[in-house]
Amino acid sequence: MIASETRTVFWEDNQVCLIDQRKLPESFEIARHQTYQQVAEAIRTMVVRGAPAIGAAAAFGMALAAQQSAAQDRQALYTDLLQAAETLRKARPTAVNLSWAVAQMLSYFERTDEQDVVRLRQGLLAHAQKIADEDVLINKRIGEHGAALVPEQATIIHHCNTGSLATVGWGTALGVIRSAHAQGKRLHVLVDETRPRLQGAKLTSWELLQLGIPHTIIADSASGYFMRRHKVDLCIVGADRVAANGDVANKIGTYNLAIVAHAHGVPFYVAAPWSTVDMSLAHGDLIEIEERSADEVMYINGVRIAPNGAQAANPAFDVTPNEYISGIITEYGVLRPPFAESLRILAERLQERMS
Amino acid sequence: MIASETRTVFWEDNQVCLIDQRKLPESFEIARHQTYQQVAEAIRTMVVRGAPAIGAAAAFGMALAAQQSAAQDRQALYTDLLQAAETLRKARPTAVNLSWAVAQMLSYFERTDEQDVVRLRQGLLAHAQKIADEDVLINKRIGEHGAALVPEQATIIHHCNTGSLATVGWGTALGVIRSAHAQGKRLHVLVDETRPRLQGAKLTSWELLQLGIPHTIIADSASGYFMRRHKVDLCIVGADRVAANGDVANKIGTYNLAIVAHAHGVPFYVAAPWSTVDMSLAHGDLIEIEERSADEVMYINGVRIAPNGAQAANPAFDVTPNEYISGIITEYGVLRPPFAESLRILAERLQERMS
Repeated sequence: MIASETRTVFWEDNQVCLIDQRKLPESFEIARHQTYQQVAEAIRTMVVRGAPAIGAAAAFGMALAAQQSAAQDRQALYTDLLQAAETLRKARPTAVNLSWAVAQMLSYFERTDEQDVVRLRQGLLAHAQKIADEDVLINKRIGEHGAALVPEQATIIHHCNTGSLATVGWGTALGVIRSAHAQGKRLHVLVDETRPRLQGAKLTSWELLQLGIPHTIIADSASGYFMRRHKVDLCIVGADRVAANGDVANKIGTYNLAIVAHAHGVPFYVAAPWSTVDMSLAHGDLIEIEERSADEVMYINGVRIAPNGAQAANPAFDVTPNEYISGIITEYGVLRPPFAESLRILAERLQERMS
Repeated sequence: MIASETRTVFWEDNQVCLIDQRKLPESFEIARHQTYQQVAEAIRTMVVRGAPAIGAAAAFGMALAAQQSAAQDRQALYTDLLQAAETLRKARPTAVNLSWAVAQMLSYFERTDEQDVVRLRQGLLAHAQKIADEDVLINKRIGEHGAALVPEQATIIHHCNTGSLATVGWGTALGVIRSAHAQGKRLHVLVDETRPRLQGAKLTSWELLQLGIPHTIIADSASGYFMRRHKVDLCIVGADRVAANGDVANKIGTYNLAIVAHAHGVPFYVAAPWSTVDMSLAHGDLIEIEERSADEVMYINGVRIAPNGAQAANPAFDVTPNEYISGIITEYGVLRPPFAESLRILAERLQERMS
C-alpha cells in the first residue's frame, strides 16, 4: 500500500525514483531517473504530477545535477546547477512549488561557505531530502488544521488528485480528508473524475480505496446536481499557485466547481502548503496557465474519441478568484478572507521568524 | 454527409432505421429494427438518443407494433398498441418527447373512425411519418427564431449533442447554430465534450465538421475558464423536458454550465420543440432523472479507467431552474421570463387553435 509505505518521490541508489502516475491504477511501477534532464522530462510528461510532488522531484533533480556535474570547484558546480535549474523550472509553468524548490536548492548552495565539491554534493542531497521529509510533516499539519473544518458526518466534493501521489506523502486536500477520517468522522467523498487526465477517477479513487474511505466517482459536470439534490457539506481542492490576494490557480475545473459551490452556499476550501503561495503576484490573472496537448482531450487511454479533423483546447489549470474561497488551509492554520490581508500578515510573520 | 441526406430516424422496408450513434465517429452504420421491442431496446441502449429523435423512433415503433400485431379487429389492435406503448414509454424516463410521441400515436388511433385493421396500420405509419417530417420543419423554425439571438460574430458554448443526430434532422440548439451559420454569421463553437458519454466530442464535433462550422472541443469543466479569459457571447443547449415553470431537464452538466454562465453574465438559451414542454409538471424537481449504469463513467470505449472496486454515480440529466435561463426557443418563437407566464400563454393559444 503506497499510502503508508512507498513515498511518491524518493532518492535511492543515486536515482530520483517516482511512482509512475501515468500507469495507475492499472499497474504500480517505480520510474527511476539518472539525470536531471530525465527528471524534467518526467515532470513534463506527468510521470509525477501534483504541485508539492513536482517540487520535491525538482529538489532531488537539483541534487542529481550536482552528482552529474564533473565540476572540480564550487564556481563550476554552481554554473552547472544554474543550468539544471533553468531546465527543471521550464518543465511546467503553473505550479510555483517547482520554481520554489529549485530556488530553495540554489539558496542553500549560495548560503553555505562550503568549498569542497564532494561535500557540496552531499549537502545538496541532504537538503533535497529535507524538503521531501518536511513535505510530509507540512501535509500532516494541513490535515489537522483542515480536519477541524469537517463536520462529524460529511459529504465532500474533491477535485483532481491531492493525495499521497500529489505530494511526497499524506496529501493536501486529500490529506485533510484523511485526517478527518482518522479522527473517526464519517465521510463520503464525491470524487470529480477530473477531465481530461482523469486524476480523480484514476488516482484519487485508487488512494481512497486503499485508505478505506467511502467514495463515489462523478463526472465533473455533475457537482451541481449533487449539491442541489443531496446535502454536500464542503468542497476541498489543492492549489498549484496562490497569488498574494488569494486567487488560486488549480486543475482545470476548480473554478467551475467553486462557482457552483458558491451558488449553493457550500463552503469551498483550498488546502496548500506555504510553498504554493506566490506573494510576488498581486492577483491570479498574472499566473501563467499551461496549455497542454489537445490530444489529452481527444484521446483516452490511447483511443481517439473525437472525429478526425477535430480540434480541442486543453488549458491545464484555471484561476479561482478569491471571492469564491471560504478558507485557505496551510500548515500554519486556516487563512480567512480578506486573503490579501491574511496572506500578507502570515508572510510578514514568517519573514520575521526567518530573520 | 448525414446532415443533408440521411435522416437519423427513418422507415424503410418495414423497418425502423436508426443511425447507430454508439458507433460514431468511428463508423457510420444504420441499425435496422423489425420489432417495437427492438426499437425500445435501441432507445434504452442509446443507439438513438436526443429527445426529438427518441420521440420519432417511438412513433415509428408504434407503427411497427401495429404491423407486428396479428389482430383482426380494431379493439385487438388497440390492445396490442397499448402494450407496445408501455414498453416504449419505459425505455427511458426523462425525455418527455418519448411519451409525447407515443401519446400522439394512440390519440391518432382513438380519434379515427377507421375499423379496417389494414387501413389502421397504414394510417398509423403515415402518422408516424408525419411526426418525423414535422420534426424537421419544427427544428428549422426553431433555428430561425434562435438565429436572431446570435450576434454577427459570436463564440457559443454548446453542451451535449442537439444536432441532426438528436432529432430527425437539422437539430434544436445545434439547429440554431446552423441557421445562424447559414445566414453568414461568423461563429466559433466551444463544444463541451459532455461526459460521460462524450456526445459533444463524438457527435457534435462530427456534425460541425461536416457543416464546416469552426469549433473547438473543451472539457465540460473548462467553460468558466473560457468565459473569464475570452469573450463568450452565449450558451445554447437542448432540453429533454421543460416543466410548466420553465425549469429544464437536460443532459447532466447543463445545470453547471447555466450557473457558470450566470456568474459571467453570459446569456443561456434552451432550444426545444413544444413537444418537449410538459405542462403537467409544475416545476423541474418533479421530473424523473434517469440514473444510468456506473460503467458509463468508469469505462471509456470499453477500457476501464477507474480502479477495480471503485464506484461511480451516473445521473444522466440534471434540472436547471428557470432563473438561470434567458430564453426558451420554440418553433413558435422565443419565450422570455417569467416562463410560468409565457409558457401558460402559449399553451392556451395552442389549445385554442386545436379546438
